[in-house]
Amino acid sequence: MAGYLITFEGGEGAGKSTQSKRLYEAFERDGRKVLLTREPGGTKGAEAIRELLLFGGYSFSLRSEIMAHFTARCDHVDQIIRPALSQGYIVICDRYIDSTLAYQGYGLGKGDQDLIQYIKQLSHLIALQPDLTLVFEAPYDVMRERCHARQGRVDRYEQLDENFHYRVLNGFKQIMIDHPNRCVRVDAYRDVEMIHQDVYDIVSRQLFESKQ
Amino acid sequence: MAGYLITFEGGEGAGKSTQSKRLYEAFERDGRKVLLTREPGGTKGAEAIRELLLFGGYSFSLRSEIMAHFTARCDHVDQIIRPALSQGYIVICDRYIDSTLAYQGYGLGKGDQDLIQYIKQLSHLIALQPDLTLVFEAPYDVMRERCHARQGRVDRYEQLDENFHYRVLNGFKQIMIDHPNRCVRVDAYRDVEMIHQDVYDIVSRQLFESKQ
Repeated sequence: MAGYLITFEGGEGAGKSTQSKRLYEAFERDGRKVLLTREPGGTKGAEAIRELLLFGGYSFSLRSEIMAHFTARCDHVDQIIRPALSQGYIVICDRYIDSTLAYQGYGLGKGDQDLIQYIKQLSHLIALQPDLTLVFEAPYDVMRERCHARQGRVDRYEQLDENFHYRVLNGFKQIMIDHPNRCVRVDAYRDVEMIHQDVYDIVSRQLFESKQ
Repeated sequence: MAGYLITFEGGEGAGKSTQSKRLYEAFERDGRKVLLTREPGGTKGAEAIRELLLFGGYSFSLRSEIMAHFTARCDHVDQIIRPALSQGYIVICDRYIDSTLAYQGYGLGKGDQDLIQYIKQLSHLIALQPDLTLVFEAPYDVMRERCHARQGRVDRYEQLDENFHYRVLNGFKQIMIDHPNRCVRVDAYRDVEMIHQDVYDIVSRQLFESKQ
């Protein structure tokens, strides 16, 4: 049996990490083979690239920044995700290709079509599309509040201005329009437990019922 | 006037660095606008990736290692090579795409055709081919002797076995066969001054005479 790749996408503070963890735990309780992972990162080499991108202070060209994200992703796919899928695991990944499209393509690149095509070609080279993508949406102000309440280091994206973050959120909307079969919107401006129940139902319905 | 991109390729110890520096100095004396650069590296971000690849001790998948080389290259092209070319510079680059083909494609990847295609697609995405490539060849034993005589840190390729290095050298031969118009073989088993004169003549003939 081949596994399933489920990706969690959305802006910072939308609750992806909390919800991906909750879904992972629920599937574990159900006795399913499930793996939780995240991007950027997922392997030691990919984490090293993540560190370099988010905190290294280098001024990469936008095209090379994008390719660096795909390099980390490629390692993650080759060494973690693909082997798990081939062993029948449900793989839950916190951020994946759509984050690069939203942050670099629509956010930093302002939706430039050459850049979007460049990202799509890299995505094609990686050659692993998700079976299902949940896009978490909440009002920008709510997400910003949640981010500010967090501890920890501030990465370079968190330092960017409001317009950047609006472009990112609009990018995720565009991705949902472009991929209506793969993407499902999740209203993230609700109680954590309610969202979790919704996520659990959506994933169960889309993956287990449709593939039986 | 658009510039020229000249790449120097070949195994370790073939004398590329010495000869690229000599050519640079000769063109400077001639009053030409000339830039000397090298890969992997060429920008601060690219150098950081180079360090991570050669000395980081990470076990990247081969596909991600290759993409990491192209990430560094992309930054180098975007921030150094392309701007210099558009200002009419002759850019001399010590190693470029063909090194990735030879070392990763033919050396580590043993010429696997999917991998060779993957490298060619990345090369297409970078979208900058050299005008002229000099491939330096010397007998393997001579090159190994020269490497051993060097000071400095030993990178991960220098630690690999003889078969690996033979595959790399055969890779360069294959590249010359595949691109007879772009590539010129340089016999590197000669006196430094003789090789330099040869290199200077080849480059002058190919680039300046043919483009007048």
